[in-house]
Amino acid sequence: MADRVFNFNPGPATLPYEVLQQAGRDVVNFKNTGMGLIEISHRSKEFIAVCQETETNLRELMGIPANYKVLFLQGGASSQFFMVPMNLLGPGKKAAYLNTGVWSKKAIKEAKLFGAIDVAYSSEELGFRRVPRSGEYKVADDAEYLYYVSNNTIYGTQFPDVPQSDKMLVSDMSSDILSRPIDVSKFGLIFAGAQKNLGPAGVTLVIIREDLLERSPANIPTMLAYKTHAEKESMFNTPPCFAIYIMGEVLKWLKKLGGVDAVAKMNAEKASRLYAAMDASDYYRGHADKDSRSLMNVPFNLPTKELEAKFLAEATALGLCGLKGHRSLGGCRASIYNAFPLEGVVKLTEFMADFAAKNPAP
Amino acid sequence: MADRVFNFNPGPATLPYEVLQQAGRDVVNFKNTGMGLIEISHRSKEFIAVCQETETNLRELMGIPANYKVLFLQGGASSQFFMVPMNLLGPGKKAAYLNTGVWSKKAIKEAKLFGAIDVAYSSEELGFRRVPRSGEYKVADDAEYLYYVSNNTIYGTQFPDVPQSDKMLVSDMSSDILSRPIDVSKFGLIFAGAQKNLGPAGVTLVIIREDLLERSPANIPTMLAYKTHAEKESMFNTPPCFAIYIMGEVLKWLKKLGGVDAVAKMNAEKASRLYAAMDASDYYRGHADKDSRSLMNVPFNLPTKELEAKFLAEATALGLCGLKGHRSLGGCRASIYNAFPLEGVVKLTEFMADFAAKNPAP
Repeated sequence: MADRVFNFNPGPATLPYEVLQQAGRDVVNFKNTGMGLIEISHRSKEFIAVCQETETNLRELMGIPANYKVLFLQGGASSQFFMVPMNLLGPGKKAAYLNTGVWSKKAIKEAKLFGAIDVAYSSEELGFRRVPRSGEYKVADDAEYLYYVSNNTIYGTQFPDVPQSDKMLVSDMSSDILSRPIDVSKFGLIFAGAQKNLGPAGVTLVIIREDLLERSPANIPTMLAYKTHAEKESMFNTPPCFAIYIMGEVLKWLKKLGGVDAVAKMNAEKASRLYAAMDASDYYRGHADKDSRSLMNVPFNLPTKELEAKFLAEATALGLCGLKGHRSLGGCRASIYNAFPLEGVVKLTEFMADFAAKNPAP
Repeated sequence: MADRVFNFNPGPATLPYEVLQQAGRDVVNFKNTGMGLIEISHRSKEFIAVCQETETNLRELMGIPANYKVLFLQGGASSQFFMVPMNLLGPGKKAAYLNTGVWSKKAIKEAKLFGAIDVAYSSEELGFRRVPRSGEYKVADDAEYLYYVSNNTIYGTQFPDVPQSDKMLVSDMSSDILSRPIDVSKFGLIFAGAQKNLGPAGVTLVIIREDLLERSPANIPTMLAYKTHAEKESMFNTPPCFAIYIMGEVLKWLKKLGGVDAVAKMNAEKASRLYAAMDASDYYRGHADKDSRSLMNVPFNLPTKELEAKFLAEATALGLCGLKGHRSLGGCRASIYNAFPLEGVVKLTEFMADFAAKNPAP
């Protein structure tokens, strides 16, 4: 693995190397069937076993209560932006949304097609550099749910805790699911695109409280009702087999690592080292307010655009790849999801100190 | 490749072995980036090149005119069942559907949510054992389009030609796309789930005439409007990268093979040998009427259920796998898509003759 780089991409993102190696073999010949993983029927006993093991491990890792269904869907988190309100709202019904970045803004836009949306909080005027504390906003009594994005990949903010509310919570956890323990029973629905902490692009995880399956209006397309997929265990139609398989391998890797508590400690350690390197001087400027900082995505700027370009080029040459920032903030962004190794963070922080010393601000 | 079997699965289905071998390497380290294919950003120059090459090769192989867009979507053909009428119909608008199997029936059910659906032909009472000839049905003057499923995987029927009609055609070509030349300019929209002739499950190909992009109602979710994906070249959100990559590799393989004309000849040869083996006696009974027979899926029954079970067990032991029939017809089904080798068909026909001789009907 001499040629492997440290991959700071925001998603699709780095995956455990042992998962890739196993996938490389299974794609050609899966469990000695004489067929590749992507050639076998989704209704074969081999693939059904993959799905079942994946669900079992996810339930164990997240502590998902028995009255929740686990669904493997397609269409990305972007499809959940409309599926959530399409299934859970309806004419005259209301929901509260916390607007903390691009992804919540898009979700609010789609939700408005299906109900009355109350934006209970927005940090847009602050450049989305913070998330609210519980108590900073009011949720209308007649809101069906409170929606929030737990981690914001672009602005590098993250809710430090689950918002306190007597309302059912709905959360887009695409970029921090399984990175720390959460109490699933506080949620009506959790969803996550896979391509950060779960696996490759192409599958979207939905965890939904069973009683909510009955809420869908009768006149929506079959494929868009959660109930359709819950009743058929995500096999109403052909599921995205490869992406589910990789998710399964990632979950096995996470279990071996010690589960969510163990990885949460490692994530805290990685982020703490990276923020310490940033805070050591005024050279690197983070975007997020300190008490809203994300443990997953760390955007930062250098004194000038020229220095940023030089930093990125030299980092890439050292095998520190994918550090280019999102176009809305420019500069740099280090995404350090579950599978990103501490070793890569150490190397980055050393490079940051070295670069700042050699390239003083003008 | 001593351990490789002949895989007659109906989908996900057999893929070219060289594609699997290449994928096995690329999943671990793609083009010497030091990152696996499923770890790189969908907006990286490497992945954008994959998408562009895939589209270019598809346009060349199918002869897609310049005024058509090629989209790589998620959700399977089942999502197109509702997206087509949601985007192309509207209150009071009408479309004509030909009902020739389970997949058209499901499409009709979804379409009824969005317009007036005229089922211009149905072979349901005949057990879906045939498809209509042009002239056997009338399409209403005010129909927006004529919809048909070009090949029926379950019942083993296939339209021998594109239906003649002055209406715009819409077709579900999931199970025979790229198996023979077609004139794309007769169609408003063609779609296909990838997991038969194109690649793995997880990506759906949509080919749509550009002017139709303007028809979508304003109040549908962003992700469900074809225009959204057309404008962003299938990158509005993270696409199913791995499935698109495999499709790209399959198209390269098909080009090397000589393209659609060459594979069409091979498909005709394979099917003709298999049907000749079936027709050699009364032992094997096909489901489809002879003039509606599919070149892709060949369902057949044996004299008794016991003989069918014995046939399947012995075939599997010989490395002829995935021959179990769909539950609605029972018996056997040989799916012989583009990537299925002639050698496997020869082996199957030899086994069929041998089995019939050794196991006479009671």
